[in-house]
Amino acid sequence: MAAPFPHPGDKTELEEGSVFSPRFDRDGLIAAIAADAATGDILMFAWMNAEALQLTLETGIVHYWSRSRGKLWRKGDDSGQQQKVVEIRTDCDQDAVLIRVEVGGDGGACHTGRRSCFYRLVTSTPAGARLRFSQDAC
Amino acid sequence: MAAPFPHPGDKTELEEGSVFSPRFDRDGLIAAIAADAATGDILMFAWMNAEALQLTLETGIVHYWSRSRGKLWRKGDDSGQQQKVVEIRTDCDQDAVLIRVEVGGDGGACHTGRRSCFYRLVTSTPAGARLRFSQDAC
Repeated sequence: MAAPFPHPGDKTELEEGSVFSPRFDRDGLIAAIAADAATGDILMFAWMNAEALQLTLETGIVHYWSRSRGKLWRKGDDSGQQQKVVEIRTDCDQDAVLIRVEVGGDGGACHTGRRSCFYRLVTSTPAGARLRFSQDAC
Repeated sequence: MAAPFPHPGDKTELEEGSVFSPRFDRDGLIAAIAADAATGDILMFAWMNAEALQLTLETGIVHYWSRSRGKLWRKGDDSGQQQKVVEIRTDCDQDAVLIRVEVGGDGGACHTGRRSCFYRLVTSTPAGARLRFSQDAC
């Protein structure tokens, strides 16, 4: 598949332009944040390569790149937790995308069974930083 | 400064444990998403090294690592847009943090003058993906 996105331009083009030129990192990946379109809650943080991003734009179904499995991953194929694109945004320097989604299946996003992957709060203790489970992400 | 965080454990410890063991990448960075605590809106996406994360936990004021400038960056020192920590979460595999913040100064987060860095919508066109400016992030 040919690279579907143009090379990033200068700072002004990146920040004020109207051409989407995502800044993939040296592994060819861009950060992707998925939020529940209905509630605004952040569901997960993952990565996309150019193919995953292009397929997400073309099909309206969110695709990621799984770093741990080293392959393209259409979210929901196994879990039923398909993510339908409502809106995609990028940030000022185009090194991240924020995707508002409608979630299929049970409405969850995390493979651990929680609705959101962000189910633990970080707190400082004298023994170091600890995690506390939040009820609102379960 | 000594590494303040323990090395990540196995999958179960990462996902179900109560010790915060952030998974820094090979550049020593972890992804950080900042959200407005009052509205839930995503304000920005940036990076933290161990020192920035530790200082954020210790001081309650968000510190980042600026990749473009190659240095620690206490957000707001120049702009007044200081970010006071309300809550920090991490995700299942501890490779990202989500920080809910109260924003000082004019309440914005983006160096371009917008409130949120995610001020453009990505849309597909026959000529490729284009960006459209959103009013709600300005």
